[in-house]
Amino acid sequence: MPFPRALQGMDRETRESLVALRRDLHRHPEPSWCEFYTTSRLVDELEAIEDVEIALGEEALSAADRMAVPDDEELETWRDAARDLGAREDVLDATAGGLTGAVATLSRGSGPTIALRVDIDALRRRESDDPDHVPAAEGFRSETEGAMHACGHDAHMTLGVGILRAIADSDFQGTLKVFFQPAEELVGGGKAMAESGHLADVDYLFALHVGLDHPTGEVVAGIEDFLAVSHFRAEYEGEPAHAGGHPEAGRNAIQAMATAIQNLYAIPRHNDGKTRVNAGMAGGGSATNIIAEESFVEGEVRGQTTELMEYMREHADRTLRSAGQMHECDVEIETVGQAPSARSDDRLAEVVHEIASEHEDVETPIERDALGGSEDATYLMEAVQAQGGLATYVGIGTDHPGGHHTSTFDVDEDSIPIGVAVMRDAILRVAETVPLEN
Amino acid sequence: MPFPRALQGMDRETRESLVALRRDLHRHPEPSWCEFYTTSRLVDELEAIEDVEIALGEEALSAADRMAVPDDEELETWRDAARDLGAREDVLDATAGGLTGAVATLSRGSGPTIALRVDIDALRRRESDDPDHVPAAEGFRSETEGAMHACGHDAHMTLGVGILRAIADSDFQGTLKVFFQPAEELVGGGKAMAESGHLADVDYLFALHVGLDHPTGEVVAGIEDFLAVSHFRAEYEGEPAHAGGHPEAGRNAIQAMATAIQNLYAIPRHNDGKTRVNAGMAGGGSATNIIAEESFVEGEVRGQTTELMEYMREHADRTLRSAGQMHECDVEIETVGQAPSARSDDRLAEVVHEIASEHEDVETPIERDALGGSEDATYLMEAVQAQGGLATYVGIGTDHPGGHHTSTFDVDEDSIPIGVAVMRDAILRVAETVPLEN
Amino acid sequence: MPFPRALQGMDRETRESLVALRRDLHRHPEPSWCEFYTTSRLVDELEAIEDVEIALGEEALSAADRMAVPDDEELETWRDAARDLGAREDVLDATAGGLTGAVATLSRGSGPTIALRVDIDALRRRESDDPDHVPAAEGFRSETEGAMHACGHDAHMTLGVGILRAIADSDFQGTLKVFFQPAEELVGGGKAMAESGHLADVDYLFALHVGLDHPTGEVVAGIEDFLAVSHFRAEYEGEPAHAGGHPEAGRNAIQAMATAIQNLYAIPRHNDGKTRVNAGMAGGGSATNIIAEESFVEGEVRGQTTELMEYMREHADRTLRSAGQMHECDVEIETVGQAPSARSDDRLAEVVHEIASEHEDVETPIERDALGGSEDATYLMEAVQAQGGLATYVGIGTDHPGGHHTSTFDVDEDSIPIGVAVMRDAILRVAETVPLEN
Amino acid sequence: MPFPRALQGMDRETRESLVALRRDLHRHPEPSWCEFYTTSRLVDELEAIEDVEIALGEEALSAADRMAVPDDEELETWRDAARDLGAREDVLDATAGGLTGAVATLSRGSGPTIALRVDIDALRRRESDDPDHVPAAEGFRSETEGAMHACGHDAHMTLGVGILRAIADSDFQGTLKVFFQPAEELVGGGKAMAESGHLADVDYLFALHVGLDHPTGEVVAGIEDFLAVSHFRAEYEGEPAHAGGHPEAGRNAIQAMATAIQNLYAIPRHNDGKTRVNAGMAGGGSATNIIAEESFVEGEVRGQTTELMEYMREHADRTLRSAGQMHECDVEIETVGQAPSARSDDRLAEVVHEIASEHEDVETPIERDALGGSEDATYLMEAVQAQGGLATYVGIGTDHPGGHHTSTFDVDEDSIPIGVAVMRDAILRVAETVPLEN
Repeated sequence: MPFPRALQGMDRETRESLVALRRDLHRHPEPSWCEFYTTSRLVDELEAIEDVEIALGEEALSAADRMAVPDDEELETWRDAARDLGAREDVLDATAGGLTGAVATLSRGSGPTIALRVDIDALRRRESDDPDHVPAAEGFRSETEGAMHACGHDAHMTLGVGILRAIADSDFQGTLKVFFQPAEELVGGGKAMAESGHLADVDYLFALHVGLDHPTGEVVAGIEDFLAVSHFRAEYEGEPAHAGGHPEAGRNAIQAMATAIQNLYAIPRHNDGKTRVNAGMAGGGSATNIIAEESFVEGEVRGQTTELMEYMREHADRTLRSAGQMHECDVEIETVGQAPSARSDDRLAEVVHEIASEHEDVETPIERDALGGSEDATYLMEAVQAQGGLATYVGIGTDHPGGHHTSTFDVDEDSIPIGVAVMRDAILRVAETVPLEN
Repeated sequence: MPFPRALQGMDRETRESLVALRRDLHRHPEPSWCEFYTTSRLVDELEAIEDVEIALGEEALSAADRMAVPDDEELETWRDAARDLGAREDVLDATAGGLTGAVATLSRGSGPTIALRVDIDALRRRESDDPDHVPAAEGFRSETEGAMHACGHDAHMTLGVGILRAIADSDFQGTLKVFFQPAEELVGGGKAMAESGHLADVDYLFALHVGLDHPTGEVVAGIEDFLAVSHFRAEYEGEPAHAGGHPEAGRNAIQAMATAIQNLYAIPRHNDGKTRVNAGMAGGGSATNIIAEESFVEGEVRGQTTELMEYMREHADRTLRSAGQMHECDVEIETVGQAPSARSDDRLAEVVHEIASEHEDVETPIERDALGGSEDATYLMEAVQAQGGLATYVGIGTDHPGGHHTSTFDVDEDSIPIGVAVMRDAILRVAETVPLEN
Repeated sequence: MPFPRALQGMDRETRESLVALRRDLHRHPEPSWCEFYTTSRLVDELEAIEDVEIALGEEALSAADRMAVPDDEELETWRDAARDLGAREDVLDATAGGLTGAVATLSRGSGPTIALRVDIDALRRRESDDPDHVPAAEGFRSETEGAMHACGHDAHMTLGVGILRAIADSDFQGTLKVFFQPAEELVGGGKAMAESGHLADVDYLFALHVGLDHPTGEVVAGIEDFLAVSHFRAEYEGEPAHAGGHPEAGRNAIQAMATAIQNLYAIPRHNDGKTRVNAGMAGGGSATNIIAEESFVEGEVRGQTTELMEYMREHADRTLRSAGQMHECDVEIETVGQAPSARSDDRLAEVVHEIASEHEDVETPIERDALGGSEDATYLMEAVQAQGGLATYVGIGTDHPGGHHTSTFDVDEDSIPIGVAVMRDAILRVAETVPLEN
Repeated sequence: MPFPRALQGMDRETRESLVALRRDLHRHPEPSWCEFYTTSRLVDELEAIEDVEIALGEEALSAADRMAVPDDEELETWRDAARDLGAREDVLDATAGGLTGAVATLSRGSGPTIALRVDIDALRRRESDDPDHVPAAEGFRSETEGAMHACGHDAHMTLGVGILRAIADSDFQGTLKVFFQPAEELVGGGKAMAESGHLADVDYLFALHVGLDHPTGEVVAGIEDFLAVSHFRAEYEGEPAHAGGHPEAGRNAIQAMATAIQNLYAIPRHNDGKTRVNAGMAGGGSATNIIAEESFVEGEVRGQTTELMEYMREHADRTLRSAGQMHECDVEIETVGQAPSARSDDRLAEVVHEIASEHEDVETPIERDALGGSEDATYLMEAVQAQGGLATYVGIGTDHPGGHHTSTFDVDEDSIPIGVAVMRDAILRVAETVPLEN
């Protein structure tokens, strides 16, 4: 495991332990709300850090605010698999029913309360086994077919642990809370963590993400242009009938679905900014000769602001309902994921930019860049900002050969020490210079 | 196994053997083109009848004219299961790749060639385990979860065997061919049997069906009003794109699907008679935030005549293609099942009606009744009629507690001796009175 | 004016007067509810017949049951034009507001009450000025551009007058009521006449129509297969907005209209018989850069039975309303014309057929034929049948060079004496043989 | 006619003559390509200015590049009306066939060629007769029912004349060309003027517009964010059929229209910027019982850049064509108006801003503001910029009680002297400081 670059001030042992952690997490990807092994592995690491308290289960998140939770059978399947991988029984107990994730709190004297949010879930996709794909070549490819850390959350967790360790080893005065958030990929976990109660005393919040087309050596101090998003699932229930014998006796769930889809895409554009709509999945019916009894549309709307997302969602809901009425089908609409928009505060981003500019391994410090996608860290950012705190979403550059969410995504592990160092120093700087003028 | 009615001239042993055959077939339902055990079991029975030659595989049907054949994996799964149930290796060899079904030919001196067509496939549905459901109560419920003889084809095969035996035991002069046709439920097997070559010398064709809301004791001499049907499957392929980041980069297969569905149902009615259209199954997409790359519509059109079905199909094809063009998606349209319309010939139906009227167990002989559905026996009827022969589709009444295709469908086994007797006598009468004036 | 055929027992003077009447009416076509001159001209003719009482205005029809009445300005324009043509002031007073048409009652001693219904309105279309078109060649082409007797109602009225005269000249005992019904072309007047009260004592009703692809010399005793019909007009009102500046501010009436149209055509077919739907006219919007504030859909549904029409109408109404809701547009749905289905009674048709068969000028008496269209004489037929009476709709063949509703439609005036003679004799026969066994 | 403000350096006589001109033009609004009286009136004014050459007809614009030209009958109606109002025969001759507008060229020694573009057409809408509406109160309300200067083009022309006079009275050295452009409201005239040849030597181009929600005393030096726009009209031609008798015989133009509209609105949003689509007008059909033979959709697409507009237009065209194919209708698509996007050059806008800042009557000079709509001045701007020149689109604030395009729109005549003074000085400054560094 050569380190071609300088060690960025991190000793070899720490670095090797972080890389080992990242690779173990990479080998064991778990999808949203199924991060049982992951949570157990994190607890192992966190317990080893002095002065850290760990909150799990309902102490770490608000169960009722979770979205996109799989059904019990699915949860149990993954929990059993985690047990087989050696997950701890105490953690499996605490996280039963999909209460995954953790909040780790380091308390050191008096000072501000600073939060760091990292996300922990993997994607439901197969990882490449191409020999050019480093995880395949170096033996840490996903061991679970159909699941993959294809968005770098393995690195995010590793950064979370590394930063916490680094702060614990420093003369930091104050409180540092690291939120290991489940279910970001479905924008299902942010709200539950934001409502956990742990944010109540937070003065500053950092969220972070690796990559995003920024190579190793770039650090973006304030990511912006988060699209607010809402995922929905509409289920239509009509009445089946024999299509040849009694077409008039059916109430056609597939006609309702098609009418809904056609009109969803036709929701008017909005002059205040970007809007989006997609009926990404849809289906229904049981046989060619049966008028379809059931169908569904699962989709999302987005907006450049939370208001624009809500405008789209209101139109989508009315469209979905009216399509049901038109074809005499009952419709149930569920929100399966949601995240508001957010902005990174200038003052906090400035601190990160100053720090990044001081680091020699950060070749290209960048003040601002747009995400252009959605993220439910925004729930935490919004909550901290609402109580007068500051938040910024930091981009840690990493070379990634494949794009995010593709089967050849991978991170450059050299970016881990950079991320740890920059975030550690930013946290220390903030702790020292309280209060920030905004 | 009490026989509350008179034995309809059938000795107890014959009757018990037919009931046992029917129950064995009922226990082992196999869906279209997967009738491996079924074919093996039939061959066992047919071999026991003197002067019968059995054609299997490509000798029994035209492989290229099969429609709705499952993929190889599916076929192999069922073939393996048949092997486990004790199916004969020679039959498994002959039917490999889904060349199921059989044509049994009894040759006896000179006389007309008469054909009987029965169908052999089961439905992909679960059978009721309610104790009021006779197969459940008497221990011959389907042993294969998710498959069921819910349309009486188990009885049809039993009738086919019983009639062949009865003719073999008679002084019949001529040739009797019994077509044990696979894949009727998907209207996928009729054409393949019609094109097998075995119809070339057939003068008269009887097809039969039990039930159809006619109770035991009714016999319909000529079923009519078959709707011609065509099953299609359209697959759209577009281009995926991130719905938030680059909606303009997608070519949306779900939009193509929805546009197609809306317009399929809007194909104009036709003044010449009944038409039908149904997009019975549809679906597509992979994730809410991805513009759908793939989708499909599977449906059917019907017409009171073959021309009307073709009118509908032509409109459907154009609609499916134009919807693809509109949304820049490629589309492939496959015909997965088809059957023409047909009429039962008066003169042949009259013979059946005369015979039925002479049988005391046939309390209610009926000349004509409408099917109002589709059937691919029509391919065989059409072929025989085209070469100057006569055909009729006979209904053998049977009490059935649940409707066809429902989980509580069952037949009254007392109707089996009636069916055997009526059809035997009809065949003998036709053989004696050749040529029929039409 | 040569009469190449025999005079069918009608003296030359009568015949010439009827032809003159027909030609005068043909020259002065008036559309539905605007038949002011027409009514005045009819009153002139009817007053000349002994023992005839004439009901006009609210005495002839139920004003509230009229459908498809034009607005006041339109009515006044036609009324003024009628005045210019010399219409009588007393008739213009009685018919003010579009209360056109008349009921003429001839009372002669005791006997059954027999009704005859003829319609009087013209179509809003231009008449051909081709020299091959007889009305153009012989100088009785429409003198009103954009209106034309293109369906033979000029002949119907002439028959009504001729039959009334012929009965008045006979030894008829009983009561004959001739209903000169307005607004048949929009199926707007039948109900108003049926609800006039004049049907209360009617025992037998004859309606009649010339042509229908039957040439001179054919008489159809009982027309059947009337499709019940309902005409509707839906108007959407949304909210305009600048399409470039604030697309989100609109509520788009054109989107509502398009959604409605797509789904109207997709109302399921019905197994009980023929159904029809057509959005025959639609439109909306004011400028390309304005989100449309207003739109409309005007269409019709039909059914082989009244129930089937009502099934279609219920679906149409729900579709129209749901499309409005989907796009946040108000919708108002008006019924602008309607007619039930009906059947011609066998016994009454038989009388006509007997009579027709006895006439030498009727070369081809026909018992039954299908209309395959709609007619609001059915309201009158239904009402008479509901009170135990008998009704039939008679077809009087006439050579017509152009099809009904085309610019070159014309009738063969030789068919007028035939119609008068057959209907006179049928009425007399019925009067003599009361009660008919049905 | 009181002038409450200072005279902005303009003598009373000049001012009164400009107000009189504006009011005369306001009284005689003419829609796009029908500006016959308007052109004649302008020629009168322009002839009175020394050293001005006037180009008319094909010398002023490229006839083949005109879009949205009304039919000949419409043109003749307005030309006849102009004659009645006293328009000059020589101008009526030159502008025959809708070749309206003019290019006035003032040549004075050597110096740069500077262009000014003003538009001259009115809207087809009724002007308010409310006594609070100044034109109504002061007697210069539109004398043509259904036409109105509701967008300030009467003031634009007046400014054009006033600025030309002012430059003529100055010591200007160079060439000033004033483009009096027809048909801006339909984005139909910009291209024709841009292709006239008169731009070939233009170094600097100013376009101007009053109001745009900027009150009197504001001047915007560089309007930006022009949406590129394309107006289209699609006409469908199918086959009529009787909706009751032979629905299958029709090719339904209303179904094609509805399918097109539904899918036009569903063209995907684009990540590169604003896009717009509107089917602003649509309609078709002739009768409820006839399958519609003809229909049309008239609409527009827009984009923040010309490329985005073209993206939308390409999708719109494919959608319109595919909808026709689906329903077997022929379709013809015409472009009835179009304009690219454009940007105001910084250096030229800076000059205007400097000048505006120096004028005491300009209380609020503004550097930049967004239009958010479309304008075909962009064709001229694009042409000048393409040959290396500079262009800016200037906003002259004016109090306007009603919004643009509403019946109560009016301009504050005090803004006319401000506009004349600012533009005169900007032209003189540019002429003096050539070449501008860009």
